Amino acid sequence: MSVKTARRRVLRVTAGGVPDERADLLAVEEPLEIRVDGEPLTVTMRTPGDDIDLAAGFLYTEGLITTLDAVHAIKMCDDNVAAVTTKPGAPMPRSSRTFVTTSACGVCGKDSIEAIHVRSRFDVAADPLAISPAVLTQLPARLSQAQRVFASTGGLHAAGLFTAAGELLVLREDVGRHNAVDKIAGWALRNGHLPLRGRILLVSGRASFELVQKAVMIGVPVLAAVSAPSSLAAELAQDTGLTLVGFLRGSTMNVYSGASRVASLDGGAASE
Amino acid sequence: MSVKTARRRVLRVTAGGVPDERADLLAVEEPLEIRVDGEPLTVTMRTPGDDIDLAAGFLYTEGLITTLDAVHAIKMCDDNVAAVTTKPGAPMPRSSRTFVTTSACGVCGKDSIEAIHVRSRFDVAADPLAISPAVLTQLPARLSQAQRVFASTGGLHAAGLFTAAGELLVLREDVGRHNAVDKIAGWALRNGHLPLRGRILLVSGRASFELVQKAVMIGVPVLAAVSAPSSLAAELAQDTGLTLVGFLRGSTMNVYSGASRVASLDGGAASE
Repeated sequence: MSVKTARRRVLRVTAGGVPDERADLLAVEEPLEIRVDGEPLTVTMRTPGDDIDLAAGFLYTEGLITTLDAVHAIKMCDDNVAAVTTKPGAPMPRSSRTFVTTSACGVCGKDSIEAIHVRSRFDVAADPLAISPAVLTQLPARLSQAQRVFASTGGLHAAGLFTAAGELLVLREDVGRHNAVDKIAGWALRNGHLPLRGRILLVSGRASFELVQKAVMIGVPVLAAVSAPSSLAAELAQDTGLTLVGFLRGSTMNVYSGASRVASLDGGAASE
Repeated sequence: MSVKTARRRVLRVTAGGVPDERADLLAVEEPLEIRVDGEPLTVTMRTPGDDIDLAAGFLYTEGLITTLDAVHAIKMCDDNVAAVTTKPGAPMPRSSRTFVTTSACGVCGKDSIEAIHVRSRFDVAADPLAISPAVLTQLPARLSQAQRVFASTGGLHAAGLFTAAGELLVLREDVGRHNAVDKIAGWALRNGHLPLRGRILLVSGRASFELVQKAVMIGVPVLAAVSAPSSLAAELAQDTGLTLVGFLRGSTMNVYSGASRVASLDGGAASE
């Protein structure tokens, strides 16, 4: 079992008061190096646990592999090194995004999305999912209830995959929200669940371009975030047909793209 | 002037209610490609603005340059491309961390810090700064007051540099908290303010390993965060002699390392 929290002595200080030494739980952050056939590919700062899923998910959502068929094995060769070996003849996964090369001197507006966009095998726009606002508004509480570590450390992001009826299928926590999503992506990939048609992906924080891209790569039609999306997240969601929900709090939400999937749009009250 | 927010039509949905279309302000996220002598070095997703500072700060806090003397010029050759040209004979900045190579098959515990740690030119442990808890507790409100964009979008991280008396010297906002800190680093580097002795760096969110490292690189002795630090952030802060403050809210805070700088420790009430 991986340890997700670390106990540490901390001084609790109150302005004008007497400091008080106590124990505090911190979210564990450690580097994970992903190697491919012995060559370092990337280092990500993550919370240990589900590291094989994280490595597989990272390779997949970054577009470095399109199927597990190219991979012979992924093994931890140390607590913090995931060693990927490829099959003979399989194309060597290489980072296509860390070092973007564009022919034009310029990545901006639409062009930037083209330049940094990794093409998905799946067309989320074609997913006929319809969801009820009433179900969506229940998801953050379900994620929180299932998330044991956040409450104690305040330091972990969570990502949860839900059915259209609001059932939690899998929860992953990490100091990096992109890692939490990659752990879900790797879990789905390794268990043959891709594409994630008819599912809802919920993240505990903000929705960035990167998270929208990862959602599209795993074929999930709805990405919901408790906090704000960025401009580019909304643009990419619209371009790909992903439903992007933000500020999902209490009984309300903002729908930034793909609003036709939110069932109540067709007339008044939500039908479950 | 760079635009930090984008207006977008959004559907406000309430469970059981009638959807309401309205305008929403989103934090702008765009890719910035940093090129060195024509070669792409990295792409970071950032909020436009202070991009020269961001590029300079990134090169510096990642340990790719140790002084501006190696740099001939940094120019925007497009809205989203910062082109760095080096002086003849200057060592070419190369990314030393994205692709970490370690001789041992393993980066873990202390080793991991060694492997991913970029050495600072400055010894923050030697900084004699003493700070009052009463001053520290005032900083988050001052940051919020100065931060115009967060309130409207909820999508931007802020980093502020303060004097020991609590005066805000510079504020930067970004969708990425590391970018906000790099913008301050670049501002300080380009204006000859390094090391940032006797200053306090405040970040609006969590404190990761990466942020502690950047703080140490610019020689600031105190890093304060409104939210939680990670385990590795606390370890690196302790190893380098940085004072790390977390959960700085209301009249209280947790001090994870370098507690001797917090003045009230020497006896009861804070003296300003």
